[in-house]
Amino acid sequence: MTKGRLEAFSDGVLAIIITIMVLELRIPEGENFSDLKPLAFKFLSYLFSFIYIGIYWNNHHHLFQAVKHVNGKVLWANLHLLFWLSILPFATSWLGENHFTKNPAALYGFILLMCALAFNILQKFCLDLEGKDSVIAKALQSTLKEKLSALIYVSGIVLSFFLPLIAVGMYYVAAIFWVIPDLRIEKNLK
Amino acid sequence: MTKGRLEAFSDGVLAIIITIMVLELRIPEGENFSDLKPLAFKFLSYLFSFIYIGIYWNNHHHLFQAVKHVNGKVLWANLHLLFWLSILPFATSWLGENHFTKNPAALYGFILLMCALAFNILQKFCLDLEGKDSVIAKALQSTLKEKLSALIYVSGIVLSFFLPLIAVGMYYVAAIFWVIPDLRIEKNLK
Amino acid sequence: MTKGRLEAFSDGVLAIIITIMVLELRIPEGENFSDLKPLAFKFLSYLFSFIYIGIYWNNHHHLFQAVKHVNGKVLWANLHLLFWLSILPFATSWLGENHFTKNPAALYGFILLMCALAFNILQKFCLDLEGKDSVIAKALQSTLKEKLSALIYVSGIVLSFFLPLIAVGMYYVAAIFWVIPDLRIEKNLK
Amino acid sequence: MTKGRLEAFSDGVLAIIITIMVLELRIPEGENFSDLKPLAFKFLSYLFSFIYIGIYWNNHHHLFQAVKHVNGKVLWANLHLLFWLSILPFATSWLGENHFTKNPAALYGFILLMCALAFNILQKFCLDLEGKDSVIAKALQSTLKEKLSALIYVSGIVLSFFLPLIAVGMYYVAAIFWVIPDLRIEKNLK
Repeated sequence: MTKGRLEAFSDGVLAIIITIMVLELRIPEGENFSDLKPLAFKFLSYLFSFIYIGIYWNNHHHLFQAVKHVNGKVLWANLHLLFWLSILPFATSWLGENHFTKNPAALYGFILLMCALAFNILQKFCLDLEGKDSVIAKALQSTLKEKLSALIYVSGIVLSFFLPLIAVGMYYVAAIFWVIPDLRIEKNLK
Repeated sequence: MTKGRLEAFSDGVLAIIITIMVLELRIPEGENFSDLKPLAFKFLSYLFSFIYIGIYWNNHHHLFQAVKHVNGKVLWANLHLLFWLSILPFATSWLGENHFTKNPAALYGFILLMCALAFNILQKFCLDLEGKDSVIAKALQSTLKEKLSALIYVSGIVLSFFLPLIAVGMYYVAAIFWVIPDLRIEKNLK
Repeated sequence: MTKGRLEAFSDGVLAIIITIMVLELRIPEGENFSDLKPLAFKFLSYLFSFIYIGIYWNNHHHLFQAVKHVNGKVLWANLHLLFWLSILPFATSWLGENHFTKNPAALYGFILLMCALAFNILQKFCLDLEGKDSVIAKALQSTLKEKLSALIYVSGIVLSFFLPLIAVGMYYVAAIFWVIPDLRIEKNLK
Repeated sequence: MTKGRLEAFSDGVLAIIITIMVLELRIPEGENFSDLKPLAFKFLSYLFSFIYIGIYWNNHHHLFQAVKHVNGKVLWANLHLLFWLSILPFATSWLGENHFTKNPAALYGFILLMCALAFNILQKFCLDLEGKDSVIAKALQSTLKEKLSALIYVSGIVLSFFLPLIAVGMYYVAAIFWVIPDLRIEKNLK
């Protein structure tokens, strides 16, 4: 089975997710810049979720550059990832609306954790299909990055109940690891 | 006529349908986890409809792997399928809002039945075009799966008026048949 | 310049237009089938606009099967068509909300007329680029279909102010001409 | 790395941005043409933003016709551009709702300036990757058009606080420079 439609469908869903979040930025009643102030938290949470979806699109792109075939398991693992990513606009909106307070911060971290988990499952299924000598197998020998970010998400979720702003800060630290495109795959593709 | 744009357009529509359903998950007023409780039914109905759209995308993918050409009839049969699938977010939302009560459960089953019917028509038109010796003709010799799931939908619709929760449960049993990618086509492609 | 991205972008926009119209079908307050009755006109107007967007996608598909190259003029003529089509959800919603009364019926007809006009301009620019001996030039020697449907739209707009239901009926008669895929192009492609 | 998915993802995001703006055109309460009057400013701001997104899609198309490879930096520069473009519907809606008054006019100009800046960064990164002897390097030797339009945006933002309607007019003058597809690239492609 070819991977073309899996990529096209994923691109479509990710494009929609990244764009519908902006619909939550409702225009204010007044016409002054000061009327935009209450939107600051919403804008910030939109910005960070935009970056996160960008990261996932980027990693998805890198992963499927190294993958040649897909099967039913990969298709469903991909849908599973898209499901958790599709919940991100909801969590983003709740976080922004409530100015980064504890429960929304914990939920946001939980969704990020589930996305990370779903991406790992997808990577694993791709690896199973490609075999031990494939580009992707060599690229993913070290999964330090995956483990470290999972650890940060779990710590962040726990911390949300005490210091939610710090917790949200931690999620963004985890993002930095991933903004850098997956050099392991790029290196092994060469 | 090439099938590329039919696939691209369908991918686009399915990607949008699967994603706009999440817009119905409006964030609650409060900032506590308990404020999310009223959303439980909505979330559940979203989850199941996500899976159903995933199933249709998956089957669509499999079908058009085995199809080489399309004509005007196939284009319209495909649009007919997309039409019924586009109603699913409405039925999903009504079902979730009313906590799986009888009329919404019956409507949901009816839309699923119409989607199944529309997919069968699409399959038939593809088969007519590809001919009796094609991969798809051999793959679709047995339509037990189609008949069984249609039977389940009809039973579910009737049952909705008496035991709506059981009816919804039946729709999900029918889904299980289809979560498994179409092995008939996969086998015959090999 | 290749036509691939023009097709992909148009497919995306058309997929979104055809799907966001369903967002106007807001679920009713109650949980009975009778609560769905007030939606009947909205549903009907959704159904017909779905068919119209389907027709345009279909014709767009046929046109660009016969076109080999695009230039800046074609890109903008295509955007011009997409602009008028993007207004259709608004006109559809206004028509459905007001139960097919005179002004909304006239506006709906006007948007259909502008879409038809925009499609003709796009065809003309493609024809200019392809040359007089091209497939498309031979296919479009007779433009009876174009002229007849324009006449129907104009008559419908005028009639809207007296017999709006008949006017809407006329728009759907014009649609029938076009549901049949463009046989002129199909024939000349062979 | 191939540029196919960058194009597909960008097409998806741009198609959604250009289409969701129309969702802000809410249908009026009444059924008369006079009820549409309050929408005039909203419609006008929609029309111009549609043209602007069309321009960016057009330029994006031209740019990536001349680009052969992409890397991580280009992917993120592209996401950066899409981010600012995704804010345009918000600015459009605020501008239209407040009938082109000073603060919304300044914000609109600021977003246009950021989009222009982001496009320049993207062009620069593509140029770095393609090398000094590439088609794109020759095409972009003169950046008069870029500098002039940036100057117009900055002037427009300042003018917004005194003569907002003139400022908005200036943004549309800047658009005219860009409606004409990038002839520098087209010429150098030949």
